[in-house]
Amino acid sequence: MQVSLTEIKFDSNGLVPAIVQDAETNEVLMMAYMNQQSLQLTLEKGETYFWSRSREELWHKGATSGNVQHVIELRADCDADTLLIRVHPAGPACHTGNRTCFYREFGP
Amino acid sequence: MQVSLTEIKFDSNGLVPAIVQDAETNEVLMMAYMNQQSLQLTLEKGETYFWSRSREELWHKGATSGNVQHVIELRADCDADTLLIRVHPAGPACHTGNRTCFYREFGP
Repeated sequence: MQVSLTEIKFDSNGLVPAIVQDAETNEVLMMAYMNQQSLQLTLEKGETYFWSRSREELWHKGATSGNVQHVIELRADCDADTLLIRVHPAGPACHTGNRTCFYREFGP
Repeated sequence: MQVSLTEIKFDSNGLVPAIVQDAETNEVLMMAYMNQQSLQLTLEKGETYFWSRSREELWHKGATSGNVQHVIELRADCDADTLLIRVHPAGPACHTGNRTCFYREFGP
């Protein structure tokens, strides 16, 4: 079943959450937010673009670090309000240098 | 690196996004939101609980369908504002009957 850009439901801030997954290992790498422009750029350029909520600016992942994410597949969920982006990462996803941002386990 | 419940950053609506991943296949199954109560219940009961934004109520995944999700591992990301829950699902994650909610591919 296909989905198109116009069907994506952006929230009241104009954003949609995007889960980034390694297309080879299936590891979940990070989650970030896209506005319409960053989603359009991601589709056009084949690399991930997000909207940085903290910096309030368009964010080309890897533009400064070199750790771009090559898009292999872009999916939406049943109600088109969450994206799943399967990528080949050129380097670690996390600003801490970890391969994935999800390196913190729940403990006591 | 460990993380505890008190470190989780809930948003202005008291919610945190939770990505649910199959612990065996690594398939991303769904994304939903947790408030503090549902996260606490998930940790205590070992099955996923969410906050349904549409129904505005606590939601025990699978309570009616039987498709509960047994929690294998619970992780948070670097800045503790997104959760990753690795589960053994008792059945399809999606209300459509699909194994995963992310069955829609971007098309032209």
